[in-house]
Amino acid sequence: MPTFRDRLVQAQRTTRSALCVGLDPDLERIPEHLTRSRTPEAAVEHFCRAIVEATAPVASAYKLNFAFFERLGDRGFAVLRRVLESIPNGRITIADAKRGDIGNSARFYAGSALHDLGFDSITVSPYMGQDSVMPFIQDAAHAAFILVRTSNPGRTDLQDLLVEGTPLYARVAETAMQWDAEAAGSIGFVVGASDLQAMARIRALGPGVPFLIPGVGAQGGDPAEVLACSGHAPGLSVVNSSRGICYASPGSDFAEAAARAARTAADALPVSPETVHG
Amino acid sequence: MPTFRDRLVQAQRTTRSALCVGLDPDLERIPEHLTRSRTPEAAVEHFCRAIVEATAPVASAYKLNFAFFERLGDRGFAVLRRVLESIPNGRITIADAKRGDIGNSARFYAGSALHDLGFDSITVSPYMGQDSVMPFIQDAAHAAFILVRTSNPGRTDLQDLLVEGTPLYARVAETAMQWDAEAAGSIGFVVGASDLQAMARIRALGPGVPFLIPGVGAQGGDPAEVLACSGHAPGLSVVNSSRGICYASPGSDFAEAAARAARTAADALPVSPETVHG
Repeated sequence: MPTFRDRLVQAQRTTRSALCVGLDPDLERIPEHLTRSRTPEAAVEHFCRAIVEATAPVASAYKLNFAFFERLGDRGFAVLRRVLESIPNGRITIADAKRGDIGNSARFYAGSALHDLGFDSITVSPYMGQDSVMPFIQDAAHAAFILVRTSNPGRTDLQDLLVEGTPLYARVAETAMQWDAEAAGSIGFVVGASDLQAMARIRALGPGVPFLIPGVGAQGGDPAEVLACSGHAPGLSVVNSSRGICYASPGSDFAEAAARAARTAADALPVSPETVHG
Repeated sequence: MPTFRDRLVQAQRTTRSALCVGLDPDLERIPEHLTRSRTPEAAVEHFCRAIVEATAPVASAYKLNFAFFERLGDRGFAVLRRVLESIPNGRITIADAKRGDIGNSARFYAGSALHDLGFDSITVSPYMGQDSVMPFIQDAAHAAFILVRTSNPGRTDLQDLLVEGTPLYARVAETAMQWDAEAAGSIGFVVGASDLQAMARIRALGPGVPFLIPGVGAQGGDPAEVLACSGHAPGLSVVNSSRGICYASPGSDFAEAAARAARTAADALPVSPETVHG
């Protein structure tokens, strides 16, 4: 089986873009004509599948936010699974679950997301340390995107604390690079677009590490600046856009509007076709 | 509605113990006679309900580990819900989900666990900062147990890093106390039994904060030392035991064995009946 890194590079070469479409299916924002005659689960599934179909020509990756599916209750997990299955082969899938646990718990979370469901990768919190991350990077076909520098206002509360003069986020990146060296799978980093200085610092620490980058689009980050900082080569930058694509139109033309918004976003996030990194 | 703190105090007065039974229903360890003639979901539900019934006289709290239910796939969430519903009123329930996200994601996780499912409290990771924690402490009936000092080997990787001479875990506790002051609900701390010096330091920072304490029993922590450090008064210490109770016997007497193990554990974790704290 090809490695996660190889498949990410290939997906970005195929689509020529670093665009990741974030599926955050919010019942309050899904077009009304979809929710009127359907159960909430059916509306979410229909909506997500339509967004996937509309954006697949230009999106190299999809990120499914578990919170929005868990909210559906008993049937949310089945909806998540069916939406995941609708994503074409050749695209990278990311379970945005922000897991962080140890021992059997971590193994079961990894088994559920990466094997039973079949995601290519998952987001993971670093606070509990190495034994909370390693179960997610046990084989080369899968990756864990470690929360290093997030894009929310509260990022400064812990991530900016200075450890011997170094911000905690940079220490986390350094430490995760050591874990990566011991792992069979791949580590990636979550690095928000809201602090490009931090992004540059983290890129210097992990020159070949894939970054999952939130904070572009609705959250204000500039695509060109982000790619200049994180890297244009395929496999380096996975730039997420959720709201700007999913909710490009509130009407019955939501899928066409999503397709247009995704194409515009993808055009602003070109990967360099000739360079291969890592 | 009574506050989380009041209900925790009351539960510990009723049972006279700080014991929390951790439900980690592992299909590889559930007695074989339960799994032989049942689906995995049915076996897990039967097992957990029997453990709850057997231990309810002495357990003041129950902690449900989401990883073990998520592992069941599409029907895991419904099993989790039914097990939760089988826990008697007057006992505190903890969603051990280690959530850590922001904005709508955090609100949906909180809504799902604390309102739709109806847990009293949830475990939460602090790495993303205040806006990832506040949605879980929006009302006095609910609490969030913040990961401060965990009991696993990897706890030292980040939690021991020195920030101006103070270990990160202590900075997290200090910072979370400030969040608590702004919150309508309650903050609790996850503080492992494997480092009593750290526990004493964190107790000094949050004299009235409930501690959810893993690492006693199968993991080696001594109950008397833990209570001496965290506090005997009702509402201060929620001491978890999972494997030592759930897997006290591998045979058809598993429930009776769990009842005996829980009674022994509860006897070793007495709360002082006359003192009320906070």
